[in-house]
Amino acid sequence: MVSPHESMTLPKSIQNLIDEFSKLPGIGPKTATRLVFYLLTKPAQDLISLSQAVATLKQSIRQCRQCYTLAESELCRICNDPARDQSTIMVVAEPLDVIAMEKTGFRGRYFVIGGVISPLEGIGPTDLRIDQLVNVIDQSTNIKEVILATNPSLEGEATAYYIVKEIEKRQNKNRPAKFSITRLARGLPIGSELEYADELTLTRALEGRKEYQ
Amino acid sequence: MVSPHESMTLPKSIQNLIDEFSKLPGIGPKTATRLVFYLLTKPAQDLISLSQAVATLKQSIRQCRQCYTLAESELCRICNDPARDQSTIMVVAEPLDVIAMEKTGFRGRYFVIGGVISPLEGIGPTDLRIDQLVNVIDQSTNIKEVILATNPSLEGEATAYYIVKEIEKRQNKNRPAKFSITRLARGLPIGSELEYADELTLTRALEGRKEYQ
Repeated sequence: MVSPHESMTLPKSIQNLIDEFSKLPGIGPKTATRLVFYLLTKPAQDLISLSQAVATLKQSIRQCRQCYTLAESELCRICNDPARDQSTIMVVAEPLDVIAMEKTGFRGRYFVIGGVISPLEGIGPTDLRIDQLVNVIDQSTNIKEVILATNPSLEGEATAYYIVKEIEKRQNKNRPAKFSITRLARGLPIGSELEYADELTLTRALEGRKEYQ
Repeated sequence: MVSPHESMTLPKSIQNLIDEFSKLPGIGPKTATRLVFYLLTKPAQDLISLSQAVATLKQSIRQCRQCYTLAESELCRICNDPARDQSTIMVVAEPLDVIAMEKTGFRGRYFVIGGVISPLEGIGPTDLRIDQLVNVIDQSTNIKEVILATNPSLEGEATAYYIVKEIEKRQNKNRPAKFSITRLARGLPIGSELEYADELTLTRALEGRKEYQ
């Protein structure tokens, strides 16, 4: 039996923050409630820190003029770094992907196209920065490699395929290809077991097999 | 290979909010990062709502003078409700337990003792509101039942046992027992399977078996 008076016991400010937390991805009403009651046990100063961190999140954030990842000035720290290899461009969907790839020790530069082609969500090629990407590649004289690092999903693959076609169009028109276009390897993730791998991953792992060294 | 420059790519305000979110229970750096990048895609107004909900959380919250659950005025909405049965007191550890029990349709009143006895965490009986509870019971003339609704854990059981002893001490001194002391039933949770139940739960379920009706 669920009482209709259930919400009667929650003070307004508590219910309000539970509602706000519940809007975040992966946080349901139960988790939100637990977070709020945790915060209630904390000193006021902790709440002020969190509140201000939220309020000021976007204040100093903009898009890098060159690669469209998140930045604090006109150029992001990566584009501003003279030690980065300008001849290798890694194309990713979202700024979060830049952070993930940075952990690999990659020392080239990036280009964030802003998503993937997804007809179901109404996102077409013109909603992404594919034209800008092709222009950047076209205007750079020293490019040796374009790495397509979209997710290994249906949408990610379709987006990569579309980008390759767009790059090829320009190449034919203006000049012969002087750089290679590559994709991240598909295969078995480290630490996984063959037994539990899906068919497609196994097929790609077999196709991509390498000489034992 | 993990790059030592990993954090170089994160603007300060983003890292700051990731750090703040990571302090919350059950939220690690990965989840915190995902939450922050989600918030970055939201309009400024959404961030302001969340920020203000955090900032104002505790502003109007106090403890109910009578039952010590969270309230917006001197008495909580439950203690203020004349329709609630004053002759039944449910003793719980935390305000969150009140919210959980309200969903059962319980229509008596509560008393929040503020935790459980836990020698490992240095919490003794005097750190809880057990004296106040015994006083409330002592001063009420119409009590018919005290329900001990502490968690079915070692600490919860010990706390319930301690409370019973304290109530009994007073009863012997001043007057004979005129009310019953009960505990929530132990047994198999609804929807569970015998096969996966732990030994203690099964033992309690067997001990607490009831006539088939």
